[in-house]
Amino acid sequence: MKKTIAVLQGDGVGKEVTAGAVNVLKVIADRFDHEFHFEYGLIGGEAIDQQGVPLPDETITLCKNSDAILLGAVGGEKWNSIPRHLRPEQGLLKIRKELDVYANLRPVTVQGALADSSPLKREYVEGVDCMIVRELTGGLYFGRPSERVERDGEEAVVDTLFYKRSEIERILRSAFEMAQKRNGRVTSVDKANVLESSRLWREVAEEVAKDYEDVKLEHMLVDAAAMQLIRNPKYFDVLVTENLFGDILSDEASMLAGSLGMLPSASLSSDGASIYEPVHGSAPDIAGQNKANPIAAILSAAMLLRHSFDLHQEADKIEDAVERVLAQGYRTPDIADGEESVSTDKMVDVIIEAIQAP
Amino acid sequence: MKKTIAVLQGDGVGKEVTAGAVNVLKVIADRFDHEFHFEYGLIGGEAIDQQGVPLPDETITLCKNSDAILLGAVGGEKWNSIPRHLRPEQGLLKIRKELDVYANLRPVTVQGALADSSPLKREYVEGVDCMIVRELTGGLYFGRPSERVERDGEEAVVDTLFYKRSEIERILRSAFEMAQKRNGRVTSVDKANVLESSRLWREVAEEVAKDYEDVKLEHMLVDAAAMQLIRNPKYFDVLVTENLFGDILSDEASMLAGSLGMLPSASLSSDGASIYEPVHGSAPDIAGQNKANPIAAILSAAMLLRHSFDLHQEADKIEDAVERVLAQGYRTPDIADGEESVSTDKMVDVIIEAIQAP
Ligand SMILES: CC(C)[C@H](C(=O)O)[C@@H](O)C(=O)O
Ligand SMILES: CC(C)[C@H](C(=O)O)[C@@H](O)C(=O)O
Repeated sequence: MKKTIAVLQGDGVGKEVTAGAVNVLKVIADRFDHEFHFEYGLIGGEAIDQQGVPLPDETITLCKNSDAILLGAVGGEKWNSIPRHLRPEQGLLKIRKELDVYANLRPVTVQGALADSSPLKREYVEGVDCMIVRELTGGLYFGRPSERVERDGEEAVVDTLFYKRSEIERILRSAFEMAQKRNGRVTSVDKANVLESSRLWREVAEEVAKDYEDVKLEHMLVDAAAMQLIRNPKYFDVLVTENLFGDILSDEASMLAGSLGMLPSASLSSDGASIYEPVHGSAPDIAGQNKANPIAAILSAAMLLRHSFDLHQEADKIEDAVERVLAQGYRTPDIADGEESVSTDKMVDVIIEAIQAP
Repeated sequence: MKKTIAVLQGDGVGKEVTAGAVNVLKVIADRFDHEFHFEYGLIGGEAIDQQGVPLPDETITLCKNSDAILLGAVGGEKWNSIPRHLRPEQGLLKIRKELDVYANLRPVTVQGALADSSPLKREYVEGVDCMIVRELTGGLYFGRPSERVERDGEEAVVDTLFYKRSEIERILRSAFEMAQKRNGRVTSVDKANVLESSRLWREVAEEVAKDYEDVKLEHMLVDAAAMQLIRNPKYFDVLVTENLFGDILSDEASMLAGSLGMLPSASLSSDGASIYEPVHGSAPDIAGQNKANPIAAILSAAMLLRHSFDLHQEADKIEDAVERVLAQGYRTPDIADGEESVSTDKMVDVIIEAIQAP
């Protein structure tokens, strides 16, 4: 297989961890006889420094001409005081919209070997295996108006939660399809006792469900879901929800794993290239120190192989290797629990060795 | 002191637990020489059954003529299939708006004696003492339009997040005043990297902060807050946020305590009577079985004394009594961790005994 992968390393530890993920992909290409071309583009703070904008047109073109995108992380203190529309995270929002990556997948799994680094007790998190499917291009993030207004003679403000039926339908279909390949359960999260958008969401979910008879659908209110993620996280198979609820719940769920350094994500496009990136941020405090955990980026590369290229065996290979080195006791500082730890590079090396082992 | 307290027991365990709280208040009145009159009103499912609406006008009048309101819980399976505008929770939303109870206070504390019933490890939750201040009468809950529309030839839907500056200001002032009486820190939670309403919220917070020089203000994004509540819940003193974020985060935070049965709440009115109620729901599965934990309702009664009547000594008395009986090992089934437990009535009795003890 011959593919072009756009690599947007971004800021801070984004560079180090994507470098590790690219090395892993090269080893996979070698071993399975694929040809991956890596093309590098600018995004975030670095793009601001070099070109004055967080997402240069060149980068958009590069992404549109690629088969998949591997992203690091964007942002940092340095760019916090510049005008908002130029900030690094605006680059993220823009690329999501440009590529129409409407389905954000955040698998939350807790590896037995790491269950003790979770704030939750082992018995609550060991064996958690949940897929959060977040709608990523609609809702309050992009609804208009979003502006200051005057009301009753004083300043007021309005934001708009907007969805078209077709936008709701496609994300729900993604969730149901995901559930078919997993344990056949979809929990659709909304606030139907308050929001009209949630009531439409429920209607559409019920309709879509008819096309997936092998999947069990249930509805849960967002406040109840925020509780259930802590009280009984093993409860969930696929959790699907709108953009802002998904932002909050997926970050809440990420804490179950003990470290953000373990969690990958995929943002699937309707037609073009999809984006794969670690859940963690640019972590400026440890950037450049060869300390960052590369596993989230490496597992994101595995998701890329699986979801964009349908290379399941190759993806499995990476995931197995990660599991193996963790079982062997290799830990970066974030998951070392005060015990001995290895560097970013060393972790990448042992994962590559595990991939190459017979 | 002579006061009238409206008691809205509501549905399910609401009845049992408010009965317990009323008994506690009677003992306090006796001991401290106050005169409390209790007037009963209908709300929720029971009101629907008897009068066809979840919040009869009589109940509103009763509340408006009272000095404070003690509420149980509303809702249950039985009323889930009736038209939405007649459902029990609509009674809740309506009474909030009618009485303009704009500030929902949700203290989250974890008693040392109960730290082991939390899903989180003891070291994460022991000593948590946080006050969540949630705006309760604005935002997406009441913004208009909230309706189906047509867009691009298909069905679409819109909800509106709306705030006036004065609404933002008053809730922030409540939070700062709270912080002055506590540990002097306010964490204001928003999504300022996406929402215009959050940006106004931040501006107002900065302005209000100038009037409270002894309080330290910081801003946190809602997704980061959802993580921090798990990673380091002891971090928070006062957390203030808008209505829907508050709904999600306060329910998330409630899980730290191990059982909802321990958590009280207050909803403070701008000028009229404020509402005090347990965080838990009507729990139809255990209703009428003398099993429910009355502590949340009893601690809500303590909040009533403190916030509506300025009776701090009396409130302390109740809170101390609760702590004492827990230390003595009394547990209702929800917090018994499989060990021996006592009934609702017995728990009320031992708390009353502890109040009456010299
Ligand atoms: C940076 C921010 C706009 C973004 C979001 O809210 O979507 C981030 O929190 C995320 O989840 O990727
Ligand atoms: C019943 C519902 C409308 C209500 C809310 O969302 O405010 C409840 O969840 C609460 O927090 O009191």
